[in-house]
Amino acid sequence: MNILRYIKSGLLLALAIAITVSCKEKESRETVTSSNSGHPGLVLTQQGVKAIRANLGSIPIFDTSLAATKAEIDAEMENGIEVPVPKDYSGGYTHERHKRNLLVLQKAGVLYQILEDETYAKYVKDMLFEYARLYPTWPVHPKPRSYARGKIFWQCLNDSNWLVYTSQAYDCIYNYLTEEERNTLETDLFRPFADFISKENPQFFNRVHNHSTWGNVAVGMIALAMDDDSLLQRALYGVKDVNLDANMKDNDGGYINRDGKVGFFANLDEPFSPDGYYTEGPYYQRYASYPFLIFAQALQNKKPELKAFQYKDSVLLKSVTALINLSDADGEFFLLNDAQKGMSYYARSLVSAVDIGYHFGGNNPELLSIAEKQGKVTLDDAGLAVALGIKDGKAQPFSKKSIELSDGPNGDQGAVGILRSGDLELVYKYTAHGLSHGHFDKLSYALFDEGDEVVQDYGLARFVNIEQKGGGNYLKENKTWAKQTVAHNTLVQNETSHFEGKYDIGSQHHSETYIFSVEDENLQVASAKENNAYPGTQFHRTMVAIKDKDYDNPYVLDIMRVTSETSNQYDLPFYYLGQIMQTSFEYSKLEVPEVLGKKNGYQHLYRDADATADGGNVRLNWLLNNKFYSYTATTSNKDEIIFGRIGANDPEFNLRNEPTLILRKKNVKEALFVSVIESHGTYSPVSEFAVNAYSNIKNLAVVHDSKAYSAVRIEMNNGKQNLFIISNENNDANNEHNLSIEDKNHTWKGPYTLINLN
Amino acid sequence: MNILRYIKSGLLLALAIAITVSCKEKESRETVTSSNSGHPGLVLTQQGVKAIRANLGSIPIFDTSLAATKAEIDAEMENGIEVPVPKDYSGGYTHERHKRNLLVLQKAGVLYQILEDETYAKYVKDMLFEYARLYPTWPVHPKPRSYARGKIFWQCLNDSNWLVYTSQAYDCIYNYLTEEERNTLETDLFRPFADFISKENPQFFNRVHNHSTWGNVAVGMIALAMDDDSLLQRALYGVKDVNLDANMKDNDGGYINRDGKVGFFANLDEPFSPDGYYTEGPYYQRYASYPFLIFAQALQNKKPELKAFQYKDSVLLKSVTALINLSDADGEFFLLNDAQKGMSYYARSLVSAVDIGYHFGGNNPELLSIAEKQGKVTLDDAGLAVALGIKDGKAQPFSKKSIELSDGPNGDQGAVGILRSGDLELVYKYTAHGLSHGHFDKLSYALFDEGDEVVQDYGLARFVNIEQKGGGNYLKENKTWAKQTVAHNTLVQNETSHFEGKYDIGSQHHSETYIFSVEDENLQVASAKENNAYPGTQFHRTMVAIKDKDYDNPYVLDIMRVTSETSNQYDLPFYYLGQIMQTSFEYSKLEVPEVLGKKNGYQHLYRDADATADGGNVRLNWLLNNKFYSYTATTSNKDEIIFGRIGANDPEFNLRNEPTLILRKKNVKEALFVSVIESHGTYSPVSEFAVNAYSNIKNLAVVHDSKAYSAVRIEMNNGKQNLFIISNENNDANNEHNLSIEDKNHTWKGPYTLINLN
Repeated sequence: MNILRYIKSGLLLALAIAITVSCKEKESRETVTSSNSGHPGLVLTQQGVKAIRANLGSIPIFDTSLAATKAEIDAEMENGIEVPVPKDYSGGYTHERHKRNLLVLQKAGVLYQILEDETYAKYVKDMLFEYARLYPTWPVHPKPRSYARGKIFWQCLNDSNWLVYTSQAYDCIYNYLTEEERNTLETDLFRPFADFISKENPQFFNRVHNHSTWGNVAVGMIALAMDDDSLLQRALYGVKDVNLDANMKDNDGGYINRDGKVGFFANLDEPFSPDGYYTEGPYYQRYASYPFLIFAQALQNKKPELKAFQYKDSVLLKSVTALINLSDADGEFFLLNDAQKGMSYYARSLVSAVDIGYHFGGNNPELLSIAEKQGKVTLDDAGLAVALGIKDGKAQPFSKKSIELSDGPNGDQGAVGILRSGDLELVYKYTAHGLSHGHFDKLSYALFDEGDEVVQDYGLARFVNIEQKGGGNYLKENKTWAKQTVAHNTLVQNETSHFEGKYDIGSQHHSETYIFSVEDENLQVASAKENNAYPGTQFHRTMVAIKDKDYDNPYVLDIMRVTSETSNQYDLPFYYLGQIMQTSFEYSKLEVPEVLGKKNGYQHLYRDADATADGGNVRLNWLLNNKFYSYTATTSNKDEIIFGRIGANDPEFNLRNEPTLILRKKNVKEALFVSVIESHGTYSPVSEFAVNAYSNIKNLAVVHDSKAYSAVRIEMNNGKQNLFIISNENNDANNEHNLSIEDKNHTWKGPYTLINLN
Repeated sequence: MNILRYIKSGLLLALAIAITVSCKEKESRETVTSSNSGHPGLVLTQQGVKAIRANLGSIPIFDTSLAATKAEIDAEMENGIEVPVPKDYSGGYTHERHKRNLLVLQKAGVLYQILEDETYAKYVKDMLFEYARLYPTWPVHPKPRSYARGKIFWQCLNDSNWLVYTSQAYDCIYNYLTEEERNTLETDLFRPFADFISKENPQFFNRVHNHSTWGNVAVGMIALAMDDDSLLQRALYGVKDVNLDANMKDNDGGYINRDGKVGFFANLDEPFSPDGYYTEGPYYQRYASYPFLIFAQALQNKKPELKAFQYKDSVLLKSVTALINLSDADGEFFLLNDAQKGMSYYARSLVSAVDIGYHFGGNNPELLSIAEKQGKVTLDDAGLAVALGIKDGKAQPFSKKSIELSDGPNGDQGAVGILRSGDLELVYKYTAHGLSHGHFDKLSYALFDEGDEVVQDYGLARFVNIEQKGGGNYLKENKTWAKQTVAHNTLVQNETSHFEGKYDIGSQHHSETYIFSVEDENLQVASAKENNAYPGTQFHRTMVAIKDKDYDNPYVLDIMRVTSETSNQYDLPFYYLGQIMQTSFEYSKLEVPEVLGKKNGYQHLYRDADATADGGNVRLNWLLNNKFYSYTATTSNKDEIIFGRIGANDPEFNLRNEPTLILRKKNVKEALFVSVIESHGTYSPVSEFAVNAYSNIKNLAVVHDSKAYSAVRIEMNNGKQNLFIISNENNDANNEHNLSIEDKNHTWKGPYTLINLN
């Protein structure tokens, strides 16, 4: 299987290796055909060090990065070396200390190379020897929560982090050490360490997951540092002769390994789409990008014949720009699947990603402007290249455009569509499940305005590394709330989650792109279908960003069409953030909130107030960050409107008490939910001026809805009337359509049109 | 009465005027002894205009301010003149248009003077003539809500705003107009306008209130512009021969006029303390400061013999620096009494205040740095002085220190104490009531960290000028919630508000300063007493900012001592902002929230969860803006702990759903509430590092509490133990004390001490 894939992908060199490996993993150093020896050689190279030293003092961003690192490490060294007995979960003392140590080791190694100051080398050596002395004495970590417990940390994942960084430190001081010292470190620390996270934890190492990526790369990096090619084979192609139960799962409920794919290249094949989208989403891509890229860089330096960066049509290099495109105007990543708010391209791993992407990816000048914003570079060859590029004035603004990023190894498992229009960024998700970090949120979306989330994706229910909140790990509300469908801006049928909330089912399906068309910046359309979330039910959601020259900001039209074989209740939640200013309808606030339901996330929602629609438009006008927004939706008579709030059945205040508005249609087979979201005005608490505080929409009407077409008329307060029509069955760009609506005949070409009726 | 006051204040010149005026208000122009005639002469002066023109192009902050104003006004002029028939409340179209017009008029007048371009003069003239044509045709404004309805706006207050600005515009184009044109404007517009807001609305004009300040100044400014000294008398000393019912109230529940004080100087006497603190608080001071200062400036220019700036020991000049000291690290004003969050020294009126304060107040170079932050100056003599000061490099940082600002006309009605330590700013309120905008919040406080409010004052319940929220006016929840005691961080007895929530009672009392001592920056103490909030009950609250070199941040010790003749229930709410991370005690979250009470603000609080104390410490650890905070409080056995949330009985979602923690002691006569608030750690969502996530306090214990002394032992996790002792009855700085606690004898001098027990 693996071999076939490699042949297909044209990586002939790898074939030889794979064949070698398929004949059992031999512990010999002759397997790989060539090797650039010499140290440092992984991330810093000997030539790189020379060039850096030659340029020091004249490369501002590099010089300041170096000064900051030196100051940081000098302060650490003052405090002496501390290698505590492992004890805590993340957030706790021993965890944070060891985490600190791995960063410090890597940085001190680099300082030794660049500054030629043996103090740093000695510090690295002393700390490594301390680990070498203690590591063999440590049992498995005492905290039991992980499916793959580490030794230094509570999970092998963090142990792998440690080795990825420490390998670089070892490479940097390799020549400073005597052969005997190297033997000691390799024998007492590095080899047993690599064996522990691989051979002794195949359920961790032999899978396709960000965990195993770290594991593979950890083993691979130390293999390169030790010039141990057979260990390198293990990193690239997994531990051989291991039979894992295909139904085994990890703590997050994800399968360990269902299809037998293992090793670094498999981890590169599977989660990345040809567009460089990482199926777990940008939050985990950010995390995984470091090992992927640092190892690709090390392979490029040590084993250029493997052409790691060219693998799968240069997918790793594409992933860097894909990831930047998956961030909002402030550089914060969109919340797709499990993701903590606030993570951004200012993360350390993104500094590496940008620098590596620039240095090994053809010197894209737009990456330099991201590096400028980051304000620092890696202290290595890639960082030097970036620093020189910036110094030479080559930086150009990174232009984020509307973009669709396909999901799935072959790019055919749906996509994420991002519509950018004015200051709005709409993130529309019609992907595959996203492995074990996926949410049950087919066809959900989130909306950002100038980098602020306005219609939110809740993200994960976790406070990463904050020990007081469940050890900093996933909270139970992640499963009972954050992953459930009702926690998202998408349709819930009969108060159950998509795929019954089951990963086994969800991971077998994906949504389908129907239209992604952004050539006309005034009319951008992303449309997708989901046919498997509920058997017998089809969703078709079309999101349109319309820029009208009469208004400062574009607005978003959302058409969600659902058809089913059976009669159902459909709930469409709308997670606006901010404070209600006004509604166009009467509602009654409850004396005290009620809990909205019993399960599937509903148990975490309070009902604060409700209303019954009369078949006309309902409008919610709200204020967030001193901006006025409106949500205008069509209704059918007797539709229910529920004002909800997150926070019920939350015994430890783990959830954020944020609002939602749910439109509920009961006992219908088919339904069309149509709404418009506007960012139309501003408020200044300093001047106390309110500007354009009201919606510009006079009326929103469904004027046609059939199997073949849906049509919505948008009437503005200034009298302008627009008609948006979408073909529900034919997305051929060249097909001609003809439809009569309200006694007018309309003809157009392609799957949709926007017609001015005035 | 008035005459005596003026004699006492030494303003002899005013005496002559007052005597003249006391013999009825004569409509003659001979009353005032001297007058600097010539136009412009109010704010811009003829000499000022010459100097400005001479410096243009070489005074950057002035030049950019001028360019911005020119661009703004040129754009307005493109749109033509619009003077709509008055119709709306604030936030509505006609309100906002007229508000815009008054600013535009003033600015266009200035542009005419500076740029010598008659286009601007013509524009001002045309718009004024449009007003002169229409004003006589307008009845009283159709919206009925105000106790003093205007003609252009729904209240005379806004009409007065209009005239304050328009007078300046008139002054600027005075010489551009023919005498006949001036006669038309004065006869058809300005005199009837001035009469309407004064003679026809004495309940508005003849009082001590920010409303009447605007009214007085409006009349005074147009009087100066028209060189009408008798009208000026009306501005300075009120409309004569008016008998208002002493019990008449305005819409906010404030008395119109209880003691007969009227006119500009009375408005200056009453609300300002000798320290320049304005009794309504900084939010309204910001609003009132413009008319006070602009009129003082105009008086200084036109009637220097009145020495307006020297009045009451230069109180107006002091008020400028007082106001800046009442802002947080970001320049946002502390929330004292009715106040909307976000108002700051970036407000337009503060640009005037800073420039005037600099120009007429001795060129304090610290004000220049505030002007630099504001990034603009007024386009007049004062703005020129600031621009030249900045250009000459004279700016110095405005150093905000711990400061106590007395309240009351004579400075003997309590005070606001501000403790600044590290990045913390503690605002402790022990003032008088604050006129009709006062809250029932004796001895309340709020805490800021790096400019972010951490322990909040709710502020007002209003969305100023946001029409969809009650016309942008005060909401009923301002009275039922925001003013009530339980909405504040202070003690509530028996679920009733201070002074029964009655303004009549509250306005007769004030708290008393006990200690304000900030010489030792590591140990700053503000202590005050309140004996009238509940008859028979005394509060004594001491707030201490302690900076310990072992920790990055200072911490706040709060000792609230209550004694009463009767047994009561005492509630002490703590309005932390942010998300709960951990508590040191078990609590049970309710299945659904309950409403906490029936009235006095309690009807607006939900009870989310509760717990019963065991007599040890209770700790709340929370996260806000990526910082970790802890609140550690002593308890008695069976004290109740209530987790509350704002938002009950809020049928229109007017309130913010923010949390509180209430400590409740039942059926006790005396009680001591002791707590420590720490800002001890940080979190980065980018690095995902949590640093110092836990409190540094091991234990907090009351080790002595008697009529004479209270003593608290603070034990830190590092073993350090400090003992804070306060004398409850003797605040003499020179008194020697001797007290034995836990078998140790302690002696010290002055009302408090902090003793290291290690």
